[in-house]
Amino acid sequence: MNKQGLNLNTLSEFDLIERFFKRATNNAYPNVLLGIGDDCALISCSAKDQVGDLAVSTDMLIEGRHFLPGADPFSLGHKCLAVNLSDLAAMGAKPVAFTLAIAMPEVNTKWLDEFSAGLLALADEHHCPLIGGDTTAGPLTISITIFGQVDATKSLKRSNAKLGDDIWISNTLGDARLALGSIRQEWIIDSKEFALVAPRMHAPTPRVTLGQRLLGVANAAIDISDGLLGDLFHILKMSEVGAEIYIDQIPCSSTLGNQTLELKRLCTLMGGDDYEICFTAPISHREKIQSISKDLDLSLTKIGVITPSAPNLINLLDDAGQILPTELSKQYLQSFDHFKTPN
Amino acid sequence: MNKQGLNLNTLSEFDLIERFFKRATNNAYPNVLLGIGDDCALISCSAKDQVGDLAVSTDMLIEGRHFLPGADPFSLGHKCLAVNLSDLAAMGAKPVAFTLAIAMPEVNTKWLDEFSAGLLALADEHHCPLIGGDTTAGPLTISITIFGQVDATKSLKRSNAKLGDDIWISNTLGDARLALGSIRQEWIIDSKEFALVAPRMHAPTPRVTLGQRLLGVANAAIDISDGLLGDLFHILKMSEVGAEIYIDQIPCSSTLGNQTLELKRLCTLMGGDDYEICFTAPISHREKIQSISKDLDLSLTKIGVITPSAPNLINLLDDAGQILPTELSKQYLQSFDHFKTPN
Repeated sequence: MNKQGLNLNTLSEFDLIERFFKRATNNAYPNVLLGIGDDCALISCSAKDQVGDLAVSTDMLIEGRHFLPGADPFSLGHKCLAVNLSDLAAMGAKPVAFTLAIAMPEVNTKWLDEFSAGLLALADEHHCPLIGGDTTAGPLTISITIFGQVDATKSLKRSNAKLGDDIWISNTLGDARLALGSIRQEWIIDSKEFALVAPRMHAPTPRVTLGQRLLGVANAAIDISDGLLGDLFHILKMSEVGAEIYIDQIPCSSTLGNQTLELKRLCTLMGGDDYEICFTAPISHREKIQSISKDLDLSLTKIGVITPSAPNLINLLDDAGQILPTELSKQYLQSFDHFKTPN
Repeated sequence: MNKQGLNLNTLSEFDLIERFFKRATNNAYPNVLLGIGDDCALISCSAKDQVGDLAVSTDMLIEGRHFLPGADPFSLGHKCLAVNLSDLAAMGAKPVAFTLAIAMPEVNTKWLDEFSAGLLALADEHHCPLIGGDTTAGPLTISITIFGQVDATKSLKRSNAKLGDDIWISNTLGDARLALGSIRQEWIIDSKEFALVAPRMHAPTPRVTLGQRLLGVANAAIDISDGLLGDLFHILKMSEVGAEIYIDQIPCSSTLGNQTLELKRLCTLMGGDDYEICFTAPISHREKIQSISKDLDLSLTKIGVITPSAPNLINLLDDAGQILPTELSKQYLQSFDHFKTPN
């Protein structure tokens, strides 16, 4: 073993963790009793340093499926953690810590420097330290498991949407899909437009603070990772309700708004990777929600309403209040699925 | 989406989790407040259902590196969880729950049936439910994160070995390596011998109960995943001590004992995948340790002693009490590393 040098051929698994991923965490994070370097990490759940209940989420991202081959490592590091922080946000949980398992085809110190910088910058921003990991050789694959603190009785479960709830969405949808389609040459946008929407795909902003502010305000929530309709479908199925969605009121950026109506609808309804929060809340909470929006300087837009369960679960309404023709509606209601061709 | 059928081409990610990995957990596991199917799972850390401090460990296993291509899926399911339970054991933690992220090249329902059966059988045995997961298409890769309950102040940290401690090992070492070498045709053993040692490689037994019994008895512990000397090295480095190891007193099976002295030493000293526990404990605890051994019907053998730190950290002593020649010693002290050729 080479414990001093950084020779690419001899840099060991232990060196990798020490050099790229380990930080002194004990002082900064009192809930982390033991970080990287032992058989397990230890998180405090004792009465004094109570973390409440623990929310846990896990994700696996694979090169060529979840991100493009040769993706910028700094952005990738950011995105891997962002998608997990987004799951905590959708539960209303406050980040506590995370673990990282990573397979890489080779030890590339420049890549690792940038990847860990992107990862740990976002971790620092959310006071969410890396407490354990596993590194191995293999096709580039990143699996993160994240832990958050939440009172389970108040957490934003998918199963709790109520009849008559407003359906809300944070910020805007569809930019990530617009950028992806441009890269895939499904459509053409100019370079100025691409520069505006690409960051939404490469470096999404997890709505962590919003999630926590929605505790006691929203009934149900989910983050938009696979597309609005596919993700909303999970809320409806688990809550045993239906929905009407005003598809032309879904907020989008001016860049996306300038595209054709068809492309705008496709990106907002079916586009994944936005990592905004879709939540349902009683009508009586509209004012509170507007107030949260103002506090966070983050637009929150009502895009529909929870209805009794119906055979197709979701009715899509256009700007004139007309239900979309069945065939068009069916097309939009296809959900993203990792074992099918990406949309 | 196909929510009814099991057509291989249309079986969705959501179906996979529902069909193969989801179980009703709420009644059986009071600490699990919310299992598979939401943005996060929820583990209770409230004062009433206290889980103490939480031990967390994560592992990533890749086909062709950590297990052989075409490995029996039932054994593989067992082994993936066993290696994580073994990390909890090495900390003295009691299993609480785990998450699974899995990439598969295709949806093979027969494979999934057997994999999940092996995985969940071991999970049931240790009252450790699967609470969340992610499935995706990709080269076969399995990443598990496991959670256990332990009092952090008593947990078996690598950094706590004390001068004069005995060094102990559970059960026997080297059978997994003997089997692996046979498969790789590094050496030849007969089919009867292979049948005896192969289960140690394919379906290791995590020493979960032993780990918990060692709380307050052992000072430091680690599980043998990469080879005794390589793993012990971590204890020594973190505890800033050295060790003498009586290499011919390391317990091995009669099958391994019947091989040449050279092969026996190689397998016991450098063989990974045994998942036995190596721990250090004060001399004053010898009787307690013998009593634990009797209670668990599990042999515990003293194989060395913690010494002051020395340049090479570990001195290897043969049966005559002689320190091994430097060259031979160096050969054994090479540690397994996932970014080097497997040993």
